[in-house]
Amino acid sequence: MRVLGVDPGLTRCGVGLIEGQLGTPLRLIAAGVIKTPADAEHSKRLLSIDEGLAEWIDTHRPDVIAVERVFADQNVLSVVGTAQAAGLAMVNAARRGIPVHTHTPTEVKAAITGSGRADKAQVSHMVVRILKLATAPKPADAADAVALAICHLWRGGANDRIAEALAKQQARRTP
Amino acid sequence: MRVLGVDPGLTRCGVGLIEGQLGTPLRLIAAGVIKTPADAEHSKRLLSIDEGLAEWIDTHRPDVIAVERVFADQNVLSVVGTAQAAGLAMVNAARRGIPVHTHTPTEVKAAITGSGRADKAQVSHMVVRILKLATAPKPADAADAVALAICHLWRGGANDRIAEALAKQQARRTP
Repeated sequence: MRVLGVDPGLTRCGVGLIEGQLGTPLRLIAAGVIKTPADAEHSKRLLSIDEGLAEWIDTHRPDVIAVERVFADQNVLSVVGTAQAAGLAMVNAARRGIPVHTHTPTEVKAAITGSGRADKAQVSHMVVRILKLATAPKPADAADAVALAICHLWRGGANDRIAEALAKQQARRTP
Repeated sequence: MRVLGVDPGLTRCGVGLIEGQLGTPLRLIAAGVIKTPADAEHSKRLLSIDEGLAEWIDTHRPDVIAVERVFADQNVLSVVGTAQAAGLAMVNAARRGIPVHTHTPTEVKAAITGSGRADKAQVSHMVVRILKLATAPKPADAADAVALAICHLWRGGANDRIAEALAKQQARRTP
């Protein structure tokens, strides 16, 4: 399964693609950022992000897209741009029939490090270990996107297993 | 000049198209809303808005698109969805090379009624008078989008005139 993680942002939108299954080693395919200049016109910045995301999706064809969940009360100054970038990731997924899921920063930290209050360095350290990398993906937004993809694969995989097991159980009970 | 006004929203995204020039009577071409069901998946709702806006733009080919400006501190509960809908209007404009401008609700009220604190009924009343309509465009989001388009045409037209006059003045001074 290929998961594209998207850490939405107007100035730097992190993207990270991993491949693997639950219970087997995960592999980093690619990570990077889509940057837009702060002095460009707002609609043109959004278009750059839209086009950048489309290119990542069409090049790497992920099976699922995981986007960091944006809260209205988080970092009030940038929430509009962040929400818009997240929205573009969702629309690009929906347009191609690719399922899209959101995870909160706390969920990502907890899934990767075991603690919802881990700092960026701890998350980055674990991303390196999990993917057996020489160094963490740079910049930080790319590493965050990769962490999000790992979180989704693990959570999604576990949820799918649980759903599957429950469905089987249900099937046995109702012959 | 054709102006498409967009009152962004996830549940109801208002759209209103007017035609005219500064100093001549304005004409309403069309107004409506793009609705998405509250129980649909978020990315699918955004895709519906994206496709709805694209259809409005491609059918009516506006010269400019005016979008209500979204503030981070306004109505915290819905700001993410509203910002995302506004972002989609901007990307659809930028993708087609159509200029896009934002106006705040206060600017719209002031332009239409002369008071930045006018209520919805006063704005609606003035929209009916300005466009010589029998009744106000329904629902309220459609009327808001039309008001936004009028505000843009008047403001933009005045700004263009000022810019043009200044450019001419400059040209006379530097022979």
